[in-house]
Amino acid sequence: MTEPLPETGLELRSLVTSDGTLELSLHDVAIPAPGADEVVVRVEASPVNPSDLGLLIPAAADMSKATVAGTAGRPVVTAPVREEALAGLRVRIGQSLPVGNEGAGTVVAAGASAQALLGKKVGIAGGAMYSQYRVVNAAACLVLPDGATARDGASSFVNPLTALGMVETMRREGHSALVHTAAASNLGQMLVKVCLADGVPLVNIVRRAEQEDILRGLGATHVCNSSAPSFESDLVAALQDTSATLAFDATGGGTLAGQILNGMEQAANAAAAQYSRYGSAVHKQVYIYGSLDTGPTVLTRNFGMAWGVGGWLLTPFLAGAGPETIARLRARVAAELRTTFASTYTQEVSLAGMLEPEAFHSYLRKATGEKFLVTPQVD
Amino acid sequence: MTEPLPETGLELRSLVTSDGTLELSLHDVAIPAPGADEVVVRVEASPVNPSDLGLLIPAAADMSKATVAGTAGRPVVTAPVREEALAGLRVRIGQSLPVGNEGAGTVVAAGASAQALLGKKVGIAGGAMYSQYRVVNAAACLVLPDGATARDGASSFVNPLTALGMVETMRREGHSALVHTAAASNLGQMLVKVCLADGVPLVNIVRRAEQEDILRGLGATHVCNSSAPSFESDLVAALQDTSATLAFDATGGGTLAGQILNGMEQAANAAAAQYSRYGSAVHKQVYIYGSLDTGPTVLTRNFGMAWGVGGWLLTPFLAGAGPETIARLRARVAAELRTTFASTYTQEVSLAGMLEPEAFHSYLRKATGEKFLVTPQVD
Repeated sequence: MTEPLPETGLELRSLVTSDGTLELSLHDVAIPAPGADEVVVRVEASPVNPSDLGLLIPAAADMSKATVAGTAGRPVVTAPVREEALAGLRVRIGQSLPVGNEGAGTVVAAGASAQALLGKKVGIAGGAMYSQYRVVNAAACLVLPDGATARDGASSFVNPLTALGMVETMRREGHSALVHTAAASNLGQMLVKVCLADGVPLVNIVRRAEQEDILRGLGATHVCNSSAPSFESDLVAALQDTSATLAFDATGGGTLAGQILNGMEQAANAAAAQYSRYGSAVHKQVYIYGSLDTGPTVLTRNFGMAWGVGGWLLTPFLAGAGPETIARLRARVAAELRTTFASTYTQEVSLAGMLEPEAFHSYLRKATGEKFLVTPQVD
Repeated sequence: MTEPLPETGLELRSLVTSDGTLELSLHDVAIPAPGADEVVVRVEASPVNPSDLGLLIPAAADMSKATVAGTAGRPVVTAPVREEALAGLRVRIGQSLPVGNEGAGTVVAAGASAQALLGKKVGIAGGAMYSQYRVVNAAACLVLPDGATARDGASSFVNPLTALGMVETMRREGHSALVHTAAASNLGQMLVKVCLADGVPLVNIVRRAEQEDILRGLGATHVCNSSAPSFESDLVAALQDTSATLAFDATGGGTLAGQILNGMEQAANAAAAQYSRYGSAVHKQVYIYGSLDTGPTVLTRNFGMAWGVGGWLLTPFLAGAGPETIARLRARVAAELRTTFASTYTQEVSLAGMLEPEAFHSYLRKATGEKFLVTPQVD
């Protein structure tokens, strides 16, 4: 079933120049022949995740001043990078970087020991997915279940493994329930389903009433709307009900992480019989895994001394989890790809389409409920 | 050498009433006969540590409005507690609480199996040290070296074990160098000496030039003055020199913890050859162990995703360290009590003297270099 491969494929690149310009463009790159244990995947679908955007369009780029040149098929976007932030981008200056953490497509060529994958639909991860073709190790491919499309499998890694990683982290660090912010996201909806299936109490924090409805529709018990006047007491009540002492926060900036810690402390103290001058002895942890709010994290410390706030990232989590855990999590993703781990996309764009102003202004907003799917095979 | 014991001794108490008043006073409490493995210690010296103040005078008490009644020998201080903070003190309301984490004195009575301690000078910890007599388990006593006075041994626990605990935590969590803020404190000076002896690179952060001089006089190599215009670059240079990735911060509030994390990240990236979109993979940690600044902790997150900020407290550290480690650390404190772990006091006060406005306004300032010693045997 092999078809003749083209010699080159398109690849989206992000470049920051030394004079402070961000440049996004499409390049023709050679498609190498696969090694014995490698496959060539024709990438058919790849999501635009928040975790892709930092590399694609650094926060320091002022996209309100972006201009588009080039041709319709080969647009070139340029935008100024704030000068004071250029030092922080030092190590990437002058490098034309491919982008795209994950995607799915069809195996169109395979090395001698990877022939079994030929013609299969697979999900893959590992960067440079905003490309028409990717050569990857066969072992890195997640074979999609029969009948699943590339669109079904495009988001098989980042969000599903992050949702499962949160629950794994909870167990490993001795907590018994979770809090999640920006909880109506694709990831948040997966987490609701995973926690329901696993019997893990989950406190969902959203910002709008319609997001509450989405999560309650999935069966979520505890949904707190941070825009509601009763948010603070709603949160403490949910934390008392669940005894959640671990939160994953996608917002990062602002006061929310501190509010959660204070709520956990209030919930712990509500049951306390004796005064402890240093606050409750219960360890309260917030992991910041996203940065929807890039402003400072502000912690008003009324939560004793047994607390932590820190960064959480999928890749180091997986590295620490070990191959057996990874295999178990991946098998679950494959088995539940179109149920628990189903993603919804509101727009499809081609590689060139990603570089249209309407598209990049839209995906940079990171609005809950909006999600782009890149289709590199479409012109 | 036993002397007849009085039936009661004075004890300082702190009470928050349900109508929102803080009351500090002295009480006569019975001195119980020691059990078989217990001793009665005549407390002769006890320091006023920042860690005592939260219990003695909660931050919510408005001491600018304090009044003193009673007699010269039995003063009673009252001050209003801010109403909005009263809920947070709920579990201590109505309880007359003894205060004082540590102290030293003479064993004046001993149970059958603790006779060997009779007449010894010992350091003790465990609360209620702002008292004339304390009954404690013999095993809890640190026998002071020959010739050491109660003043020498008054601070044998909190500061020495905290300094040693910081170095232990560093080793246990895989770091190789330390950062310390408010570094000219009694504790900070101990840490300088411990790190010099143990060959641990240490970055000291102080706020004034004369504090720099104190630490350099002790042999400190890296001393950064946060009031200096060059502080930010001084800090990064020191972090590059030392590769310190763990900090202990006594200030808590403000931007310092975040500045340290950003400095660590800059130091890590200065050596980086390749761009990492999530920042350096080096884990950077700040433990907040004090709260000299009770304002919010403000983290401007330009330090990637491999970071943590959290509370650190001596008691849970010791609980986790286990008896062998504790015994090793205590033996070192005893051996180096008048060298590495020497404390300096600027004022001595009696129990009644602690309740004089001049005294409490002074120790509440927590000024570096100023330290009170309570002498409960003095009228």
